[in-house]
This record gives sequence, structure tokens and C-alpha cells, in this order.
Amino acid sequence: MVVASNGSSPLVYSNGTKVPQSTLSSDSVVNVEKGDPMIFSPYWEKMNDECTVVIKAQELMSYVCDENSLCFYMLPQMRDAILRIHNVVGNAVTKDNYIVLGTGSSQLYHAALYALSPSQPPNHPINVVAAAPYYSEYPDATEVLQSRLFKWSGDANTYNKNEPYIELVTSPNNPDGAMRTPVVKSKAQGKIIYDLAYYWPQFTPITHQLNHDLMLFTLSKSTGHAGSRIGWAIVKDIEVAKNMIKFMRLSSVGVSRESQIRATKLLEVICDSYQNLKSIKSELFFSHSKRLMKERWEKFKGVIEQSNVFTLVKNPIAYCNFTKETSESYPAFAWLKSAEGIKDGEKYLEKFNICTRGGERFGVDAKYVRISMISTDGEFNELLRRLLKVKRG
Amino acid sequence: MVVASNGSSPLVYSNGTKVPQSTLSSDSVVNVEKGDPMIFSPYWEKMNDECTVVIKAQELMSYVCDENSLCFYMLPQMRDAILRIHNVVGNAVTKDNYIVLGTGSSQLYHAALYALSPSQPPNHPINVVAAAPYYSEYPDATEVLQSRLFKWSGDANTYNKNEPYIELVTSPNNPDGAMRTPVVKSKAQGKIIYDLAYYWPQFTPITHQLNHDLMLFTLSKSTGHAGSRIGWAIVKDIEVAKNMIKFMRLSSVGVSRESQIRATKLLEVICDSYQNLKSIKSELFFSHSKRLMKERWEKFKGVIEQSNVFTLVKNPIAYCNFTKETSESYPAFAWLKSAEGIKDGEKYLEKFNICTRGGERFGVDAKYVRISMISTDGEFNELLRRLLKVKRG
Repeated sequence: MVVASNGSSPLVYSNGTKVPQSTLSSDSVVNVEKGDPMIFSPYWEKMNDECTVVIKAQELMSYVCDENSLCFYMLPQMRDAILRIHNVVGNAVTKDNYIVLGTGSSQLYHAALYALSPSQPPNHPINVVAAAPYYSEYPDATEVLQSRLFKWSGDANTYNKNEPYIELVTSPNNPDGAMRTPVVKSKAQGKIIYDLAYYWPQFTPITHQLNHDLMLFTLSKSTGHAGSRIGWAIVKDIEVAKNMIKFMRLSSVGVSRESQIRATKLLEVICDSYQNLKSIKSELFFSHSKRLMKERWEKFKGVIEQSNVFTLVKNPIAYCNFTKETSESYPAFAWLKSAEGIKDGEKYLEKFNICTRGGERFGVDAKYVRISMISTDGEFNELLRRLLKVKRG
Repeated sequence: MVVASNGSSPLVYSNGTKVPQSTLSSDSVVNVEKGDPMIFSPYWEKMNDECTVVIKAQELMSYVCDENSLCFYMLPQMRDAILRIHNVVGNAVTKDNYIVLGTGSSQLYHAALYALSPSQPPNHPINVVAAAPYYSEYPDATEVLQSRLFKWSGDANTYNKNEPYIELVTSPNNPDGAMRTPVVKSKAQGKIIYDLAYYWPQFTPITHQLNHDLMLFTLSKSTGHAGSRIGWAIVKDIEVAKNMIKFMRLSSVGVSRESQIRATKLLEVICDSYQNLKSIKSELFFSHSKRLMKERWEKFKGVIEQSNVFTLVKNPIAYCNFTKETSESYPAFAWLKSAEGIKDGEKYLEKFNICTRGGERFGVDAKYVRISMISTDGEFNELLRRLLKVKRG
């Protein structure tokens, strides 16, 4: 619970703690539209000593990292670190599967569409669908080059064509944090891309060690290092893996080695700390980040409850095999529904200088808005301050 | 001139120096098919102290590097280093142009096709052409997603449709090192992508400060750091630049920050050394690498002259505004033509365990083969040893 201020007295939460003072002028815009994972930055500041990487002029010059590997541009130690983090967290099965590295999971999304589309296209491109609300970038990313191999076909819930399709299953879902399974009921042949960017313990209980045909992960949301542009796919079928790698070769001749060195180091330090191989000065990464997410969600829910403008769905609760406790999900985004009479949530919040992403971008009604829960502390606190002023007149 | 050995006596060049002893067994394959720029690696080994980069855990985490810049994912210091190297070398005009960063120039090639294609496609996709022999990856890279926006239409020399087109001008050309200008004679509206990957002083005299609408460069061939996947486009039209950046956002949300930090350091060290800002222990980069290329070409030409199997075209000679001397080009690839009676140069060389790339991949006759001149010293010397044995029976 948060008690709003009157006039110039400071804002206080109901437990007496003050809402931190604003560092932004009131006419500046608080941007919580994007999903920049800056919430984890202070943690990594404390880890600077353990995680520093040093790269010399002569290192990592070749196009080829491992000529004996299908994924010739992936450093062997990068592959090992990916296998190890999944083994530590228990969120995905890697045994007998192939790892395909990408410039973030965005590039792997294209690689996966390429690899899953029929190589001899029929009259129609394969339909690509996702249950609404779906990740807002999927339609544009799918359509950018107007491929004859695949096309964006909208909401998976209403897909009823008797034609082959690819269903995107984002779980936990962006924007609403829901745990998802495929929804298409068509009898036609379907393939599934699991986008598991948020299937990490800080965001959601790890309920299963997933073992799907094609699963996408990204460093951006697992450790918060979005700038590194490191993503990876776990792929069962060697032909699919080969075609994804072919796409990666034609698209960018692989992935930055410097990012791979850094991502390897970050993942190794996390794994070492959980496997008690090295003591670290800070709290363990997933415990720390889950605590941060929980704290933000509690404050946020307090603010929204006070408002008579927006409602939130309840976050799922489940037993987490990783933390060995039952807990709520703390999604990277909050998904708000505007009250009756407010047609456009994004426009409504613009009046309070809060920049969000409206529901129509996610394939649903403009009543909905998505708000980032993983921005900087400064932005998040300012968001709370402004949301406290959001009251229907 | 090289004198071939008889039996087990060592191979010697005509000036008396020995061809280095082989480190490979005679039945292993020498791979000079790819263009991995490992020739520059020993130089950078000597520069390890000056060029080391250190990246801490907290650095470079955000999706955004510079929110005030069109190219939001490019570090300001990366941009400055790109402007500076072109200023030092004098190979391209950057003033009043936009810089778009890519994951190597491969990704920028796709970004450029996207940006130059009509946004409202007519009945036909725009034709993409390049004068044969053209870079062997262009057809596959153009066709990979079977776009409705553009299509590969082959040799620019024979293009005579009255339809809009995009001409790729690679200069110096890959595979044959020729200095190129557009060749399409069609009266239809044409746009040009200049692929200037090899327009650096070690490969060719810098004759002009080029100032075309869209020019592509890459770190892979300028400094030899292919593993970093850093390329950049210099673009005149802001709308084209914006569309390329839109493609980069949808394709991979930008470019690795770690690679940017490293590329910046490497380019800065080169610029500092030329601008006498810091003395370096080693020779200057472009002088050193031009000397290496020249030495290799002289040895290589000696070997080919002795053979009655292959011929080479003369490399162009011109005054270089950068080195202030008239000199030959020393292309990154040798482009060999087989003698009468040899139909397939690639197959012919396979018998000597030399792996090359045949002419058909470049849109011409199989009589031609491309050979990398920028492999490791070990591979290059082994290539010479084996070519000495190539004699028609």
C-alpha cells in the first residue's frame, strides 16, 4: 500500500518508507515503454572484479571458432557455459540437442522461421501465429522482408486455416507474464517456436525442465546484458539446426566473439557461485534479482490498487524447482487494463508523462498497456510517483 | 621466380631463400577457399599491449548506446573512430553522411537491400545485379528469405530489363581485385551499393576519396578482425539510413557493444600511430600489411609463372594518395584462369589437396578459381609448395 502525498509533503508507502525523491523534472517523460533490463545493473557493478574480461589485439580474429562444430562461429567455451547454466537452473534440457548461437534471440527468430518453413514453398507462405496478446515485435520482424517462405497471420487463438503453420509460444509471455502452451486447434501440420526469454528464476517459478523441439533464450533477460546481443537456440533436429546456422552465415557470418567471451564469463561466474566453486562477495544472482523483482512488484501493486484507473491480472503462483519454494511470478512487464470509459491506456498515461506501449501493438484492445518493470531504479521510482497521481477526476 | 625441388631436396626461390618447410602432412588439405584474414594476426600479436580492451561486468548493458543518435545502438566513440580512420586513410567522405553500424557488412547488405527496395512493391521485386565475376555469397544472401522486395537477377553486364534495379559494385572486386564502376546500361532507375570491403591501402592504391550514396566497409578486411563482426555503411540519404537502422532493429536490435569497444580501440590505435599521437613499437599497420601482401604476391606470381597450368591477370597500378607512391594492387584473392584443356580449375587443384572456390560460384566459367592470399603464413607457404608441383603431365 502507498499513501499519496498532499502538496509538497513527501510520498510515503503505507509502511512509512518514503518513495525516493524524483531526480527528473515533472515535465520530463518517464519511458517504461521498452524492456531495457537495467534493473540488474547495480548487481553487476558489485561483480565488476569477478567478471571483468580482457581481450588482446590478436585474439578472436578468425571467422571460424570451431571448425569441427556445426555452429562454426560459436566458441567452445560459450557452448559449455550455455549447457552449464541450463544444468544449474534446470529450465531446459540440452542433452542430445544442438545449440545455435545468434545476435540476440531476434536474429534466431528469423533463423528459426527460415529453418522451419518448407524449403519448397507451396502456393502460400507458411502462416506464423501467436496467441494475443503477443510480443509486439513479432508482426514487423516476420514481415520486414516480405518473405515468400512465411507470413504473419495474427492471433493463434483464432487460427482455423487448414494450412501448415508455425506457432510462437512465449512463456512466460511478453507482455502479460502468463505461462503459455500452444493454442492452435487446426488439424494442419504445425511447428512450434518456444520463446523462453523470460523463463528464468527471477521472473517465474521454474516448474519444468523444458524439452521442446526449438527453444530460444537470450542473455538480455537472463543476466540483463542486452547490449551484448547474445541469444541461443536449443534445437532437437539436426537439419533444423543446420538450416538455422546457414541463415546465420548468410545473414551475418555468425556472432561477435567479444560478446561470446563476455557472456561466457558472466554465465560461468553465476554457475560457479551456485556450484560453490568460488565464493563471491555479493548475493547469488537469481536470489538477488528475484528479490528485486518481488520488491518492485509489491510496490507497484500497492500503487495500482490505490488507483481506480487500472487493474492487473494476478501473477501465476507455482512451486519453483530451482529455489525450492512456492512463489508468485514477477514478470518483466506489467500488463494493465484501463477501467471502463478509458479507451486508450497509452494515450491516457501520456498525459502524466508516462510513456508505455499500448495494447494494439500486442494484437489486443487499446485499453491495455504494457509497462516495463525492469528499468533503472530512478525510472521505476519516478513511475510510481507519477502513477500515484493517476486518479480519475 | 621459384625453382622446384627434385625429390627430397628443399624447395628454394630463385634468390636462394628456401620455401619454409611444411608443417602439414602431404595428404592434408590446404584450405584457401575462404577469405579468413589471418595474415594480419602476427602484427596484432605485437600490438597486444597497446590494443587490449578491458570490459567490466556492469558496462554496456543497455539496448541503447546513444538515444539522441539515429543509430541508437552505436557507441559514440565507435562512430568517432570510423570517421577518424576514413579521415586518416582518405578513402571515403564522411562529412554530412550518416554512419549505420552492422554485424559485419553482411548484415548491412541485407539492410541496404531493404532500404533501397521500393516500399510499395510493384508486381516484381527490384532486380539485384552485379557484374560477373561477382562475390560468390551475393546470390544466396539475396535469395535466402525469398523476399518480395528484391530478387537476385545475375550479371550486371547483361542486364537489359526496363525495370528498376540495384547494382552491387565491389571495388576492389572480390574475386579478381579489379577497380570497378557501375556497368548497367539500362535506362531504368538504378541504385548502387558500393561494397568497399577491400578499399584499404594494403590491398590497393587509394586513388579517390569516394563519396557515393551508399558505401559498405568492414573491420574484417580493414584490420583483419573478422571475428568481431563489425561493419559500417556510409549513407547520404537520411531516409535510407533510417530504414537500414529499422532493419537492424528488427533483425538483431543492433550490434554487439563488446565488438564496438574493441573495434574502436583498434581503429584508434591505428589512427594515433599515423597522426603521431602515440609512438608504437611496431611498424605502422598499413605499411606493414601492404608489405606482407606485396611479398606474398611476388612469391605467388613466381610460382604461377613457372606453372603452365594457370594464368593471372595483371593487378592494376595507380598512384596512392595515402602512401604517396605509385604501386600495384595486392588483392586479398588471386583469380586464376586454367589453361586450355582444363575445364574445372577447382577440381584440378583438389587433386593436389588444394581447396579453392571455383568460377561458377562467381557467375563465370569453371576454368577460373579464387585463392585466398590472406590465410596464415603456414597455409600460404604450403599453398606455394603444392602449387610448385602443379605441372601438366
